[in-house]
Amino acid sequence: MAKRVAIVGAGVSGLASIKCCLEEGLEPTCFERSDDLGGLWRFTEHVEEGRASLYKSVVSNSCKEMSCYSDFPFPEDYPNYVPNSQFLDYLKMYADRFNLLKYIQFKTTVFSITKCQDFNVSGQWEVVTLHEGKQELAIFDAVMVCTGFLTNPHLPLGCFPGIKTFKGQYFHSRQYKHPDIFKDKRVLVVGMGNSGTDIAVEASHLAKKVFLSTTGGAWVISRVFDSGYPWDMVFTTRFQNLIRNSLPTPIVTWLVAKKMNSWFNHANYGLVPKDRIQLKEPVLNDELPGRIITGKVFIRPSIKEVKENSVVFDNAHNTPSEEPIDVIVFATGYTFAFPFLDESVVKVEDGQASLYKYIFPAHLQKPTLAVIGLIKPLGSMIPTGETQARYAVRVFKGVIKLPPTSVMIKEVNERKENKHNGFGLCYCKALQSDYITYIDDLLSSMNAKPNLFSLLLTDPLLALTIFFGPCSPYQFRLTGPGKWEGARNAIMTQWDRTFKVTKTRIVQESSSPFESLLKLFAILALLVSVFLIFL
Amino acid sequence: MAKRVAIVGAGVSGLASIKCCLEEGLEPTCFERSDDLGGLWRFTEHVEEGRASLYKSVVSNSCKEMSCYSDFPFPEDYPNYVPNSQFLDYLKMYADRFNLLKYIQFKTTVFSITKCQDFNVSGQWEVVTLHEGKQELAIFDAVMVCTGFLTNPHLPLGCFPGIKTFKGQYFHSRQYKHPDIFKDKRVLVVGMGNSGTDIAVEASHLAKKVFLSTTGGAWVISRVFDSGYPWDMVFTTRFQNLIRNSLPTPIVTWLVAKKMNSWFNHANYGLVPKDRIQLKEPVLNDELPGRIITGKVFIRPSIKEVKENSVVFDNAHNTPSEEPIDVIVFATGYTFAFPFLDESVVKVEDGQASLYKYIFPAHLQKPTLAVIGLIKPLGSMIPTGETQARYAVRVFKGVIKLPPTSVMIKEVNERKENKHNGFGLCYCKALQSDYITYIDDLLSSMNAKPNLFSLLLTDPLLALTIFFGPCSPYQFRLTGPGKWEGARNAIMTQWDRTFKVTKTRIVQESSSPFESLLKLFAILALLVSVFLIFL
Repeated sequence: MAKRVAIVGAGVSGLASIKCCLEEGLEPTCFERSDDLGGLWRFTEHVEEGRASLYKSVVSNSCKEMSCYSDFPFPEDYPNYVPNSQFLDYLKMYADRFNLLKYIQFKTTVFSITKCQDFNVSGQWEVVTLHEGKQELAIFDAVMVCTGFLTNPHLPLGCFPGIKTFKGQYFHSRQYKHPDIFKDKRVLVVGMGNSGTDIAVEASHLAKKVFLSTTGGAWVISRVFDSGYPWDMVFTTRFQNLIRNSLPTPIVTWLVAKKMNSWFNHANYGLVPKDRIQLKEPVLNDELPGRIITGKVFIRPSIKEVKENSVVFDNAHNTPSEEPIDVIVFATGYTFAFPFLDESVVKVEDGQASLYKYIFPAHLQKPTLAVIGLIKPLGSMIPTGETQARYAVRVFKGVIKLPPTSVMIKEVNERKENKHNGFGLCYCKALQSDYITYIDDLLSSMNAKPNLFSLLLTDPLLALTIFFGPCSPYQFRLTGPGKWEGARNAIMTQWDRTFKVTKTRIVQESSSPFESLLKLFAILALLVSVFLIFL
Repeated sequence: MAKRVAIVGAGVSGLASIKCCLEEGLEPTCFERSDDLGGLWRFTEHVEEGRASLYKSVVSNSCKEMSCYSDFPFPEDYPNYVPNSQFLDYLKMYADRFNLLKYIQFKTTVFSITKCQDFNVSGQWEVVTLHEGKQELAIFDAVMVCTGFLTNPHLPLGCFPGIKTFKGQYFHSRQYKHPDIFKDKRVLVVGMGNSGTDIAVEASHLAKKVFLSTTGGAWVISRVFDSGYPWDMVFTTRFQNLIRNSLPTPIVTWLVAKKMNSWFNHANYGLVPKDRIQLKEPVLNDELPGRIITGKVFIRPSIKEVKENSVVFDNAHNTPSEEPIDVIVFATGYTFAFPFLDESVVKVEDGQASLYKYIFPAHLQKPTLAVIGLIKPLGSMIPTGETQARYAVRVFKGVIKLPPTSVMIKEVNERKENKHNGFGLCYCKALQSDYITYIDDLLSSMNAKPNLFSLLLTDPLLALTIFFGPCSPYQFRLTGPGKWEGARNAIMTQWDRTFKVTKTRIVQESSSPFESLLKLFAILALLVSVFLIFL
């Protein structure tokens, strides 16, 4: 009999998990608390309990060729960075294409997931759900938890002395939907993650004045990267990754700083990260420096004190340290938790869960519970979660055997202690990992990692594209279980799809006479050298 | 008796003209049609006849250190690129500081300016003005026309077949004030100058869909230039200008294209200029490529036909050629005219006026009429107009003698024929000129051009800063008539003022170990070489 798998949440990871179960002949049942799929990508005007909340203007941080499911490219006419409404449409197309909808039970909250009495033998779970007031219990052979990490706002009001006396409005960025509320107000955004930066920039189009307070600073990257290529198609290549990971961390850090400062010197804009050695997730924003240089957003250090109608900043060099403020937005991030799971199953401490390969609770007697999508790689979430799901279902099936508990616990502890081998980028946050390295590791375990050396002999063009080109998700479907026939073609045409949507006015370029002259010289030099060789 | 000078318009050039008259002991009377000073920089909610009209969000294209009056830096706390309301405040400070207000007659329209009967001898003008319905006539010894070139919208509806059948809304960009009108609309902006691009980007935050149609394309520059320095502080240096002007035009053109494409490849974004040899004024915009890559603005080629509810584009490669449109904004530019002057004084043909050095009508018997600010240098208007005014008043006084009419007419005709010597940038538009070259030429005539060679001996630091640093307006007040004592200090502190407003969060930078290592090696190498030399 096929194994029954309970999947919690029908967001990007939940959908991938359903599909992976089906591919491997498992029987998925997905429980989704809200009335539709899409998870965080489904914008609603009102914040919903237990679901991540978007603001209206959210656009993906990872481009379409890098953030699709590995066997389902985005439609050709999609923009490179996808606005949330179109992203949701894409997820619906995916669900349609692979017939996933019928496995989802909407408006169904998972109340508890507990080990069955014979768990040590069967590995089974008792899942209690609530649907329209009715409680139900069912037994599952495995569980995939796909609830993400953006549902519980982190609002450490204690860190802002005087906030209780503040007479203006304040709220967590989770509550933010539209910029209208900032019209003609003096706005302070606290925290410089992607949300905080987006909100500050957006507010600056309407507000009277906008301050962005950051303690740690951050590197800011533009989606429009070198020569206008999507940032992740340039940054996330196997070639660059190899170089980064072969160099000692201080050199990589220095190179990264140099690169980041080539767009704008972060020190001159008040944004330079405090700790440069440990790489915090960079912020994706195309407009911030332009808003700073035109006096629309003002950067400030951390907050010292909040008063009735103003905020005092710490250590405010050559700027007024106190500013009148009407609205404060706390973009102070999120914490995550698994309210339906007992601590003995997954314990969350200091923003870390003890998960082997960020997936399996290390100490469970049976590997029948997987957490999918609880990782922040410097790359796209979709292919990461999808690869985790592919890996997890093969563990459920027993095709992949996990190492002994002691080995798994060791791996987890090393990560907790933030041990680093001294090479490559050094990530400071618990959930952060090197995208390509992490996915390759999972693919290797599945025998689905493309072998570049043998490819170089059989299909050199593909091999070179894989190595030097963007590490797009199609690479993860070239070989092994879950192989997709369309993968090669998708890789070879990824740049075409990228430019198709922006190259919408074409000019016959008459190459400049200077360029022609250069070419002529090159050809002449070539002829001369050929002539000399054969002389 | 001091000469009486009539000044038409109290915008940036008008204010400079008043001040220059006062400096040279002339007696200025400035006629301003509206009820306040500032010209185009004074935003009003409603378009005023005969005055340039701003939209609410306009920010200066030239940074504060490059676009101030040469003896009056912007306040230290001003942002680098100044929003229009602050710009107006600056102009008011200038008027206050130099006591200009009392020379302005507000709400006074210049009706006609005609030669006095004895013009050939006296060079005098009869100026007829209208103030609150009352007509007045006065005689002036000289006239400075400071009415700018952004008052008469150019709306060639004939070029858009079918526009009469269009059922949506359409208007010239001059009418545009706020983006609200675009909410949830499908918007088409025609023309890719600074206004068109600004409006398209702004609309894209609210509209359903935004198209930007451009026939010729354009190079787009960000205010945030290399390493985040203000673009004009990097681009407009004497050193770079020397290099540009020493190289043949095809090489300069090629280098410019290379540089422009380093931010984003203009061909891939559908923006590449059709004619690369003749430099059209580049577009200043920090957001456009980011809006294109996120699918918020779509670039389209020229319009073939307008239908009732849609627009058909020419030659639309791999994109739908017809798009439903609700609103069309024609950002098709401006023409200029001098309705108060007879054609025999200044004739405007093909966007050209026959003005010697862009100032003096070439064929007048007496050089007592100057047009100030009728030029579009690739640099700031304020110091350009100011230098023109300084030059003009010295011509009025007879200190500077203009060459014979035939020489002046020859210069004007050469410009009309767009003769180019084959070196440096080649400007395609009538009013465009090389900023530094043009101003240096005027300064030379006034003996106010700093002599770099002698400075190198007396004040080498200043000389190097002038040559390699930004060609800021303070340089024009270092020497000669109109010398400003504060000029040297203003030049030496220009970067301090630039960073003061953005470096508002300072982190003690612990230089990376790698960097320290590099420095150590450098020092060692130095020591070794010193040792070897003295061995």
